Amino acid sequence: MSFRTHLEEVCRQVEGAVACSVMGFDGIAIETHEVKSPEVDLQAMLVEFSNILGQIRNAAELLATGEVSEVSINTEKLMTISRLVSKDYFMVLALLPDGNYGRGRYALRLATPKVRAEL
Amino acid sequence: MSFRTHLEEVCRQVEGAVACSVMGFDGIAIETHEVKSPEVDLQAMLVEFSNILGQIRNAAELLATGEVSEVSINTEKLMTISRLVSKDYFMVLALLPDGNYGRGRYALRLATPKVRAEL
Repeated sequence: MSFRTHLEEVCRQVEGAVACSVMGFDGIAIETHEVKSPEVDLQAMLVEFSNILGQIRNAAELLATGEVSEVSINTEKLMTISRLVSKDYFMVLALLPDGNYGRGRYALRLATPKVRAEL
Repeated sequence: MSFRTHLEEVCRQVEGAVACSVMGFDGIAIETHEVKSPEVDLQAMLVEFSNILGQIRNAAELLATGEVSEVSINTEKLMTISRLVSKDYFMVLALLPDGNYGRGRYALRLATPKVRAEL
């Protein structure tokens, strides 16, 4: 099973899903499955996101709050939920603002170990 | 009604709440209501958080994703949910990892306009 299958599965399970991606903290996507065209520049957003997530990860280490499990950034046009896959990679799910946020968190929580197993 | 009353109300409504705060993006808390002592350095975390949230706000402007409505950063020891109050201030709720996350989001969404009205 490739990454793509897991990403497709997440998008299929979550109402309002826009895209699901496995990304490196360097801002380079390993694999992205896009199901809707959002109003925003998704690629630029993911790059910016990986930068911010990297900083959050570093801050969490510094503050000894334990490993970052989930980060969610919601704006007027897009909601995003992300989870760490490994120290170098994370998964991110983008949703429409009226998408099913709770379902998105759940689907991503289930998918992360599956993707981790394939890294 | 002061800020504190709103912060107390949020903490009372949410199972597992640790603290609720109104903060500036400069990292200075206007008011904090703390109900539990978390395992982490809460003050240091809030300062770091305000810095990261400021960057997210700037990135959202740059990428035209619309205003940031909510940011959530969850680690092994603490979950945090934050919402913008104005362009200079935000509210943040810290919860234990087994706290009621959904209820936290809801309580914070209701409290934000009340705090905004008093700024």
